Amino acid sequence: MDNIYYLGPDGSNSHNAMLKFMDLNITEIKNKIPQKSIKSTLEALEKDENSVAVLPIENSIEGIVRETIDNILKLKDKDIKIQGELTIPIKHILLSTGTDRTKIKKIISHPQALSQCSEFLYKNYRHAELKEVSSTSYAAEKVSKENDDTLAAIANEACAQLFNLNVLANDINDEKDNKTRFYILSRHSLITKANGKTAIILSTKNKPGALCDVLKIFAQYDINLTYIDSRPSKKCLGEYMFFMELDCLENDIKVKNALDKLNEYVNFIRVLGSFFIYN
Amino acid sequence: MDNIYYLGPDGSNSHNAMLKFMDLNITEIKNKIPQKSIKSTLEALEKDENSVAVLPIENSIEGIVRETIDNILKLKDKDIKIQGELTIPIKHILLSTGTDRTKIKKIISHPQALSQCSEFLYKNYRHAELKEVSSTSYAAEKVSKENDDTLAAIANEACAQLFNLNVLANDINDEKDNKTRFYILSRHSLITKANGKTAIILSTKNKPGALCDVLKIFAQYDINLTYIDSRPSKKCLGEYMFFMELDCLENDIKVKNALDKLNEYVNFIRVLGSFFIYN
Repeated sequence: MDNIYYLGPDGSNSHNAMLKFMDLNITEIKNKIPQKSIKSTLEALEKDENSVAVLPIENSIEGIVRETIDNILKLKDKDIKIQGELTIPIKHILLSTGTDRTKIKKIISHPQALSQCSEFLYKNYRHAELKEVSSTSYAAEKVSKENDDTLAAIANEACAQLFNLNVLANDINDEKDNKTRFYILSRHSLITKANGKTAIILSTKNKPGALCDVLKIFAQYDINLTYIDSRPSKKCLGEYMFFMELDCLENDIKVKNALDKLNEYVNFIRVLGSFFIYN
Repeated sequence: MDNIYYLGPDGSNSHNAMLKFMDLNITEIKNKIPQKSIKSTLEALEKDENSVAVLPIENSIEGIVRETIDNILKLKDKDIKIQGELTIPIKHILLSTGTDRTKIKKIISHPQALSQCSEFLYKNYRHAELKEVSSTSYAAEKVSKENDDTLAAIANEACAQLFNLNVLANDINDEKDNKTRFYILSRHSLITKANGKTAIILSTKNKPGALCDVLKIFAQYDINLTYIDSRPSKKCLGEYMFFMELDCLENDIKVKNALDKLNEYVNFIRVLGSFFIYN
């Protein structure tokens, strides 16, 4: 494989997920290429036959990453499939160029990171100024450049190393079980293990109980849904598509049978990928 | 009623929804008070016994507004309920201090508005610089202040009037059926009409087919689900709550029976409101 694309900049959680994937994956990949957005990561993958992309799909606090689903649906090349998933822990830490945590007067980070550490901030830095910036790695870079020991960033361990910053406080998330799940996308299959999932998107017929009929079919074939989410059809308010993950592979006979049966009940169905879990 | 709180600034879509609600509502409300965020709008409502709040819940292109659901769930005063809903069309227009649309070199707006007009922008302003700002009304205000006829904002009709700007192009959304639905929240019931909905949130027991069991109960009592969405439990990845809207009122005997029956199948259930539709 030639290239791997991910949501940059370096030090981002997607960058960490990409590094974990490179550790676990056996195929050699030559270049690591950061991208500016989820959209541009998938566009790069689409233009490059022999490549892989790593994108966040779900965080345990914030929920599904809609931009990833919506942009996967826009892919013109239907040979690009979800080929794997992996999960990394999200640990926020407080970083500064100084070492005295009582000196801090201003803290910068991505709005989600600030919000996920609000109890810590309220308890320890009630009077500090909080400022939102576009990413946690940008916050760490800014703190490193400004070299002002009253300024701190909330970011991750990778950023501490990358920007040579001191850790003033570790593991400052309010919720300790903060994790993000990533999809690995490619035209080529990557690993084969026993433990697999299938991701699909479908739109039900517009009649009462239509979603219930769909779920009954999965129950009937003993297929467990591990995720369900509604996305707007983008045609009119109140018309939805459903994104679902099933706990088995597409080539499992029960999935084949359920998908056949489903055709009677849905307007549209598409398998986005059948994939294994790197963990 | 004393005060109505909404997501500002003036000229925002929430401001428009608030004005529509004031037109339709028969109870007198003394003061219109804009707020900086969804969170602070609900905090203001919680501190003010005799008040109403207007918040966006769903857009036909972007989907549900998670921040609204998550912050409603955080309300400590359980007497605050969803008391009504209303829907307004979202029409993006191109605004400038000048009148010559061929002069425009830079276009500013909220990222969602820029993305929702991307076909128009690609066709007509492929070489213009696009810049993201925090809201469409802030974009319009900035264009009005800078008084530079090469600069334009994507905003709405209300902003054109509020900031005295010229309309260079009308109805520039890629998807013509762009609408946003709003919730009206209060401790006090507001209108009583025949056409109602009930919003609930529940967590299912962690076993295969649990969601299917819940949906079956609604089908059995002939209750139509108009919306379903999963939200993370925020405890661990893979544990969810389901936000649902039913097409009838809580005091309908079939809803009472279904909710009684549901108690056997769920860990937790809460009625967020049973309300009427202003339209």
